[in-house]
Amino acid sequence: MASSDLSGLKTPESCTADFCLIPLGTPTASVSKEVAEVQRLLKKSGLNYSMHSAGTTVEGSWDDVMRVIGQCHAMLHQNGVVRIQSDIRIGTRTDKKQGFKDKVEAVERLLKEDEK
Amino acid sequence: MASSDLSGLKTPESCTADFCLIPLGTPTASVSKEVAEVQRLLKKSGLNYSMHSAGTTVEGSWDDVMRVIGQCHAMLHQNGVVRIQSDIRIGTRTDKKQGFKDKVEAVERLLKEDEK
Amino acid sequence: MASSDLSGLKTPESCTADFCLIPLGTPTASVSKEVAEVQRLLKKSGLNYSMHSAGTTVEGSWDDVMRVIGQCHAMLHQNGVVRIQSDIRIGTRTDKKQGFKDKVEAVERLLKEDEK
Amino acid sequence: MASSDLSGLKTPESCTADFCLIPLGTPTASVSKEVAEVQRLLKKSGLNYSMHSAGTTVEGSWDDVMRVIGQCHAMLHQNGVVRIQSDIRIGTRTDKKQGFKDKVEAVERLLKEDEK
Repeated sequence: MASSDLSGLKTPESCTADFCLIPLGTPTASVSKEVAEVQRLLKKSGLNYSMHSAGTTVEGSWDDVMRVIGQCHAMLHQNGVVRIQSDIRIGTRTDKKQGFKDKVEAVERLLKEDEK
Repeated sequence: MASSDLSGLKTPESCTADFCLIPLGTPTASVSKEVAEVQRLLKKSGLNYSMHSAGTTVEGSWDDVMRVIGQCHAMLHQNGVVRIQSDIRIGTRTDKKQGFKDKVEAVERLLKEDEK
Repeated sequence: MASSDLSGLKTPESCTADFCLIPLGTPTASVSKEVAEVQRLLKKSGLNYSMHSAGTTVEGSWDDVMRVIGQCHAMLHQNGVVRIQSDIRIGTRTDKKQGFKDKVEAVERLLKEDEK
Repeated sequence: MASSDLSGLKTPESCTADFCLIPLGTPTASVSKEVAEVQRLLKKSGLNYSMHSAGTTVEGSWDDVMRVIGQCHAMLHQNGVVRIQSDIRIGTRTDKKQGFKDKVEAVERLLKEDEK
């Protein structure tokens, strides 16, 4: 950073984020209703995403991915949840383009060689 | 906690943990070799586990789950990785027994009703 | 969400995020150089932030906070780091405005009563 | 791992963990009461720890650190919290012994040189 102006520094063009969203102060300990609403919103976003038991993985540009996670918070607040905490694991890389399915396949290829 | 002695306080009998392990200072940016070794170790542990693109979910008693994640660190250190950082999302509950597959199914049931 | 259009759904006006950034595939296991660069960038951002041993807490609007974390990734990529993984804990709430210092003080007030 | 027996694989002798514990399904969105109870338990544990606004950092052997976090879950369950989710960032390294204060100081030394 030669300059002190950050406006020229663009966020990454692509990223993979995995987020686990937790509503606080809700009447029940179940979160499936909120997680279902998050899935519906992600579907509308047009981004590539995949739910698993410990979160949801979504990929796209940094700005698009972070905006949609923020919109999940905003939507649940609109629905009456007063406090929300998310844990986000986000990765970016410049050495290659790798979708989230490629990552699993790379490991599975290695494991398959064990069986030979 | 009436007493100041923690020895009588047992860790939870069951938990679900999702962990993402990152080796630092390795020659390449790829982690698939290390993740494959983690999967092999988990297989030997006998615990129920499932890999996805952003981590691995494992369930069992708190002590068993945490021990096996610690053993993953120890194994990779033995293999020459000098520094390892893991992010672990871990949940415990007393209201019901819920395996990690049940959590996904509960959300999918809600989403299926949208299609009716 | 009555409408299927997400463009009207604004991200939260304020949030507190705590992030831990990890460069992968770097020659050494030390990350202090990269963390120092992140601190310099945060200083330029004008946002309120605080470093601790396990990450950096930053507060502001959702968009401002997420942009600056993305810029940290972008800057380190420009400096030659090919892969970066961050863990972000982010919280939003509508019941009250609470800066990150207030959170620590609320707990410390409770702990001080123990000494009475 | 030449052998398929994991019993000989010891967990790391030292680690630094930073955890953020969230109670679910509690009547209020405030968590300061629960966080204060966690601090009291940590004090009794004898481990070195430090609270900040986004979690608590604790250091010790892998087993001791993980046991005490599990005991925090168990204690809050005893107090009536039915579901608890924690995010844990845990690091181990074999190249040097580094306490959590050393990590902050290493970065601050680099930042101080900027002012020269």
